[in-house]
Amino acid sequence: MIQEPFKPAARVAGQKQDVWTIVNEAAAASPIQPIVNMGQGFYGYNPPAFVLDAAKQALEKVDCNQYSPTKGRPRLKKAIAAAYSPFFGREIDPEKEVTITTGANEGMLSAFMAFLEAGDEVILFEPFFDQYISNIEMPGGKVVYVPLHPPKDGATKTTSASEWTLDMSELEKAVTDKTRMIVLNSPHNPIGKVFSKQELQAISDICVKHNILILSDEVYDRLYYVPFTRIATLSPEVARLTLTVGSGGKNFYCTGWRVGWLIGPEHLIKYVSAAHTRICYSSVSPLQEATAIGFEKADEEGFWEESKRAMKGKMDRFNQVWDELGLPYSDPEGGYFVLANLSKVQLPADYPFPAHVASRPRDFKLSWFLIKELGVAAIPPTEFFTDANAHIVEDWLRFAVCKNDEVLEDAKERLRGLRKYIRE
Amino acid sequence: MIQEPFKPAARVAGQKQDVWTIVNEAAAASPIQPIVNMGQGFYGYNPPAFVLDAAKQALEKVDCNQYSPTKGRPRLKKAIAAAYSPFFGREIDPEKEVTITTGANEGMLSAFMAFLEAGDEVILFEPFFDQYISNIEMPGGKVVYVPLHPPKDGATKTTSASEWTLDMSELEKAVTDKTRMIVLNSPHNPIGKVFSKQELQAISDICVKHNILILSDEVYDRLYYVPFTRIATLSPEVARLTLTVGSGGKNFYCTGWRVGWLIGPEHLIKYVSAAHTRICYSSVSPLQEATAIGFEKADEEGFWEESKRAMKGKMDRFNQVWDELGLPYSDPEGGYFVLANLSKVQLPADYPFPAHVASRPRDFKLSWFLIKELGVAAIPPTEFFTDANAHIVEDWLRFAVCKNDEVLEDAKERLRGLRKYIRE
Ligand SMILES: Cc1ncc(COP(=O)(O)O)c(C=O)c1O
Ligand SMILES: Cc1ncc(COP(=O)(O)O)c(C=O)c1O
Repeated sequence: MIQEPFKPAARVAGQKQDVWTIVNEAAAASPIQPIVNMGQGFYGYNPPAFVLDAAKQALEKVDCNQYSPTKGRPRLKKAIAAAYSPFFGREIDPEKEVTITTGANEGMLSAFMAFLEAGDEVILFEPFFDQYISNIEMPGGKVVYVPLHPPKDGATKTTSASEWTLDMSELEKAVTDKTRMIVLNSPHNPIGKVFSKQELQAISDICVKHNILILSDEVYDRLYYVPFTRIATLSPEVARLTLTVGSGGKNFYCTGWRVGWLIGPEHLIKYVSAAHTRICYSSVSPLQEATAIGFEKADEEGFWEESKRAMKGKMDRFNQVWDELGLPYSDPEGGYFVLANLSKVQLPADYPFPAHVASRPRDFKLSWFLIKELGVAAIPPTEFFTDANAHIVEDWLRFAVCKNDEVLEDAKERLRGLRKYIRE
Repeated sequence: MIQEPFKPAARVAGQKQDVWTIVNEAAAASPIQPIVNMGQGFYGYNPPAFVLDAAKQALEKVDCNQYSPTKGRPRLKKAIAAAYSPFFGREIDPEKEVTITTGANEGMLSAFMAFLEAGDEVILFEPFFDQYISNIEMPGGKVVYVPLHPPKDGATKTTSASEWTLDMSELEKAVTDKTRMIVLNSPHNPIGKVFSKQELQAISDICVKHNILILSDEVYDRLYYVPFTRIATLSPEVARLTLTVGSGGKNFYCTGWRVGWLIGPEHLIKYVSAAHTRICYSSVSPLQEATAIGFEKADEEGFWEESKRAMKGKMDRFNQVWDELGLPYSDPEGGYFVLANLSKVQLPADYPFPAHVASRPRDFKLSWFLIKELGVAAIPPTEFFTDANAHIVEDWLRFAVCKNDEVLEDAKERLRGLRKYIRE
């Protein structure tokens, strides 16, 4: 007889409060309401009208409300193949080289479930998007970390996200005979780095040499402010090892729609589809249809250009406040997150932090302080590092700028309140 | 170095064609077009207007298009708690005793992921909904089968779904000291059986005695034609072991929306939520909101009564054709599937079945024959059995009646074409 029927499996037993819960609870309890929430990366505005209208029309159609094929709606796979074929410089086969998932998140889980056996190793760069860890560990994979090194003078002057660098010899050393996959993220969350062609070439050389599968998380692929290279396009040898991940939520301002996809060679995609079928069966039908129509119309609507232009405008508008305050930041090359360095901000010595914040690195205290005293929520980035390397970013905070301009101006006004805590 | 970089993990390596693919491909290739598809259990009509309108309105709201809390939108959890509290005879706590998932399917996977360690055993009744198997095996669980015995004279006369019976001593014998969970499904797919209070009492006695968690799949909970008991309501001792699974897709005629939920005690739900967060992160926002509004309005719209009445009407309307033909069926007590017995149908001796059908039990041949010769698709139910017990249903086919009345009439007219193959 089972002695402890309510005992959870090890994979869910850890009950350490995650960063999202801590920040959201603090925001809800702040004396300043409403809070300006620049924490989580959801958009502060709606998808464009041509996508919203497509969703409403899809809801009228019987087949758009019922189960879709497990690999995704044919129309969406076709629209994605058509949209990405020019980037990949070849015709993508919609039936064999594209599969639809429940957001990029479940898509990546499906990829890990498809290829990892217990004990297989996956290389991740630090900092990392936190969901990767549990997604790799669920099928029994082991995470091996390789650090991205921060700009040396990031605490004293504004630097470029490109100055976060990878030491290729460290990467090469991390490879063992159990290394099965590597996860890449460009444009990068939270750094905002767009990996250069040279960097991607060096990474892929190592992958080709060691037969390592590349899972390239490109969910911010329409938001880049410097030239953007997709690793799958470097050579046929790289392409055969690469799965590229995309997200309708990130592309069309609807993170709650949960439509994602993977693109790659048939010999990889077929197993990702098989895993997805076993996890979610199929993904949300009417919003797959709307996403398909989004892709079909985006070019004629000039949406991609406008989307990038608007986000870069928000980024520059918001970052003015750091220049005003004399606080350095890491200027993003892509995506919608910015890391600001608050080492000059002196927190009052006797400030009453609750125990679950006091026990964390300084960035958690900075985050708490901004929420309570200024009414602005941002994410402490040490959560994206292992304990050993958390100190690298303990003076930084991550702000999401995918919000309306008035909200950004409000945030700036509130952040000016930092001035009295700044010590040079 | 990895020698076979494209080798899939064992959990997805099996590439045996599943029943859905075989039936769908046969249907697409049938000389009779359009086919009447009574195979997969999707509705042939739209959700009710008050739910569709709610979805369209949700699409207008910024927060309904962005990430929902991982445990689900507060409004939906509240609506579900309010709708189910009367059934459970106590106040369900929406924040602690309800969690939202990406369909019932991913909800059940989350439950298995929450509690199963490698080697733990889960008891399933045969026949079973096929997704259970991979969902149990993914976290390393082992399935232990207990048969439901068919009505003895099911081949010669129409019987009631209640005549499929469970031998409690067989169930008791299947319990070992590794038995962690049992899966129950009522109303049942594919049998249409609604487990009686006495049966549930006997099952739950065994579970309480051995501390076995009960995962009660009640996705057809609004479609019952005899009294329906929820196992969680039998006693507090049973309730503390039970997770009840529901599906917005089944309740509101929108299987493609992928909104499901689990209800249960906090000590179980919190780990299901944790697993769900690691699998899908969060579920589809605008359709969660629409499902919430569906629950809020269903009673005043008289929807539940109408839904049950309409489905029972479809069931009776369709089953007339078996009476006409003198073919027996198993009269369902709930849900929207009916099993018809085609042992009297004699297939032409020299009929050219393709190899992947010829190698399967007789029900696959019956299914193929009906698709090609009559233009009606149904599911061969041996797929819901282990190989050892498949023979039990090799003369049966499963028909989904959740289709428009004209479609059902069309199906009946086509099925009358069976007459010339019937031998008494
Ligand atoms: C780097 C990265 N990958 C994946 C995701 C998840 O994308 P989706 O919402 O499509 O699951 C996010 C979301 O924040 C992200 O930042
Ligand atoms: C018994 C049973 N459980 C669960 C499901 C899956 O429900 P959902 O579509 O909400 O994932 C089905 C769908 O056919 C089913 O028949």
